[in-house]
Amino acid sequence: MSDTKSFSELLDFIRSETDSHLGKLDLPEEPTYLYDPIRYALAGKGKRLRPILVHLSGRGFDADPDDLMYAGLAVELLHNFTLIHDDIMDHDDTRHGKQTVHKKFGTEAAILTGDSIFTLAQLIIGQVQSNTVQALQAFNKASLTVCEGQAYDLQFEGDSTVTLDKYLDMISRKTGALLSLCAELGGILGAKSDDVCAELRSYGLNLGRGFQVQDDILEIFSDKENLGKSLESDVAADKQTILTILARKHDGWNEISRSDADISTKRERMRSFYIETGVEVRAREISQGYIDKAKDSLTIFEDDHKITMDQFTDFVLNRTH
Amino acid sequence: MSDTKSFSELLDFIRSETDSHLGKLDLPEEPTYLYDPIRYALAGKGKRLRPILVHLSGRGFDADPDDLMYAGLAVELLHNFTLIHDDIMDHDDTRHGKQTVHKKFGTEAAILTGDSIFTLAQLIIGQVQSNTVQALQAFNKASLTVCEGQAYDLQFEGDSTVTLDKYLDMISRKTGALLSLCAELGGILGAKSDDVCAELRSYGLNLGRGFQVQDDILEIFSDKENLGKSLESDVAADKQTILTILARKHDGWNEISRSDADISTKRERMRSFYIETGVEVRAREISQGYIDKAKDSLTIFEDDHKITMDQFTDFVLNRTH
Repeated sequence: MSDTKSFSELLDFIRSETDSHLGKLDLPEEPTYLYDPIRYALAGKGKRLRPILVHLSGRGFDADPDDLMYAGLAVELLHNFTLIHDDIMDHDDTRHGKQTVHKKFGTEAAILTGDSIFTLAQLIIGQVQSNTVQALQAFNKASLTVCEGQAYDLQFEGDSTVTLDKYLDMISRKTGALLSLCAELGGILGAKSDDVCAELRSYGLNLGRGFQVQDDILEIFSDKENLGKSLESDVAADKQTILTILARKHDGWNEISRSDADISTKRERMRSFYIETGVEVRAREISQGYIDKAKDSLTIFEDDHKITMDQFTDFVLNRTH
Repeated sequence: MSDTKSFSELLDFIRSETDSHLGKLDLPEEPTYLYDPIRYALAGKGKRLRPILVHLSGRGFDADPDDLMYAGLAVELLHNFTLIHDDIMDHDDTRHGKQTVHKKFGTEAAILTGDSIFTLAQLIIGQVQSNTVQALQAFNKASLTVCEGQAYDLQFEGDSTVTLDKYLDMISRKTGALLSLCAELGGILGAKSDDVCAELRSYGLNLGRGFQVQDDILEIFSDKENLGKSLESDVAADKQTILTILARKHDGWNEISRSDADISTKRERMRSFYIETGVEVRAREISQGYIDKAKDSLTIFEDDHKITMDQFTDFVLNRTH
C-alpha cells in the first residue's frame, strides 16, 4: 500500500516537474501567428506518460536527472507535434475536450505549429550531456517510424483487406516506436549497453502495442467524457482497428460495417456485435498479452526498480480513458 | 576566364555529387503512401544553391568533405521540407513546372512527407563527425527561425500597415536564416571560432536578404517559363513584398492594389506602376546593397577562396529565374 502511494507520488512529481518546465520554455511573443498556437498546444494538461517513462527508465540506471528532464520534455514535444499534425490529417476537431489546433487557428498555422514544436524538441534533446548524438539519432529514427505508422494508418483507411499482421505493424510504428524511444532513452542516458537498450526498446514497443489495442477498444467502449476526443472519428474515417479486423471473420459484419446508418447508430451496432461475437474479449486478451510480454523485459532492472516499472506498466493499461 | 570555367565546373561537380547522394538515400518502398511522395519531392532537379554554399564555405576551412556532404544533404532536405509545407500553406499548385506534393498526393500525405523529409535531414546531419552537436543545434535554431519567417509572411498577408523594417525582418528569417546556416555550417565543420562563424552567418543572412528581394522582383518581372512556379500567387494572396511596400508611398497605388481586376491584369498594372514610379529600380538597388554587404564579410577567407566566394555571390544574384 505504501509502495502504491509512493509510486503515485513519484508520478505526480515527474508530471508536475514536466509541466513546470514546459511552462518555463523560453518562447517569444512574436510572431503571434506562431507562438499563440504553440502556447495553446502546450497548455493542455496531458498525462505525460512519455516523459514519465523516460524518467522511470533512466532512474533505473542512475542517469543524470537534468538529462532525463531534457529528454522527457523532448518526447512530450514530439508527441504533441504528432498529435497536432495527425489531427489535421484525421480531421479531428477536439482533443482532451479542447478544440484541436487546426480547428482553432486554421490548418496553415497548425502545420507550422507542429513543425516548430518538433524543432523545439530537437533543440531540447540536443542539450543532454551524455551520449548526445546517440540520443538524437534514436529520437529521429523513432520520429521517422512514427511518420511511417501514420502513413500506414491513412493508407489502410477503408481497406478491408488489411491483415492482423499489417495492423500490428502499423500500431508498432505509430504508437510503439515512441514508447520504445522513451524506454530506450533511459538506457542511452544511463550509458547502458546495446543489449540493454534493445531490451528497453522491446519493453516500450510491447507496451505501445498493448496501449494502442486498448485505445482502439476505448474508442468504441468508453464514454466521450472520459476519452475527451471525438469518439466516432475511427468509425467515420473507416479506420482499421483491432476490432474491425477481428470482427471481419464473423458472419454479419459486412452488413454492419457497410450500412448507411448514421455514425452514432453504426457505432452502437458495432459495439453490440463486438460483445456478442467475443471480439471485445479477444481484443482485450491481445492487449493484455502485449502488456505481459512488456513485463518480461523488465528483468533488466534491479528488483526494487522492477517493481516500479511493473506498476507503471499496469498504470498505463489501467486507465478508463 | 579559366577561373570562371573552373568555378562553374566546381558548381557542377558539387551539384552532381549532391544529386547522386540524394538519389542513393536508403529509402524503403513501403509505406507507398509516404515514400512515393518523398521520392517525387526529391526527384526534382534543384539548383542546389544551399548545399553548394555549405561546400564552398567549408572548403575555405579545410572541413572534412564527408561532413560537408552530410551537411549539404541535410540543408537541401530542410529546404525541401519547408517548400512542401509552404506550398500547402500558400496554396501553390506548381513549383519548377511540376505539381506540388499536396496537389499531386493530397494535403495529408504532403504534411507527412514534409515531416519525414525534415526528420531524414536530422538523421543525416547527425552523421557529421566534427562538432556534431554544435552543427545540430545550429541546424535546428535556423529551422525554427525559418518557421517564424513563414509565420510572419502569413500573418502579414493583406496587412498594408507592414513597414519596410518588418518586411526585412520577415525575409531575414524566412530566407536569410537558411543561407546563414549553410555558410555557418562550413565554419562549424571546419572548427572555426565563434567570431568567424558569426561573420559567416552575417554573409549568408545578407545573401539571403538580397536573394529574397530579388525573388519578389522576379515574381512580377520574370516570365512564367523561367520562374517555373505560379507567378501570380503573391498577388493573389495579397502578400507583402518589397515592391508593394515601396509602392505604397506613391500616389495611385491604392487604386491598383485594391482593384477588382483579374489577377493577370492586376499584375500587369502593378508591373507598369513599379517601373513608372522607380520602385523596381529602388528594389533592385536594395537587393544589390545586401549582396555588396554580404561580400564585405568574405574577407575571412584566404584570397584565392575569397574569389570563389565572390563568384558564388554574383552567381546567386545573376539568375534569370
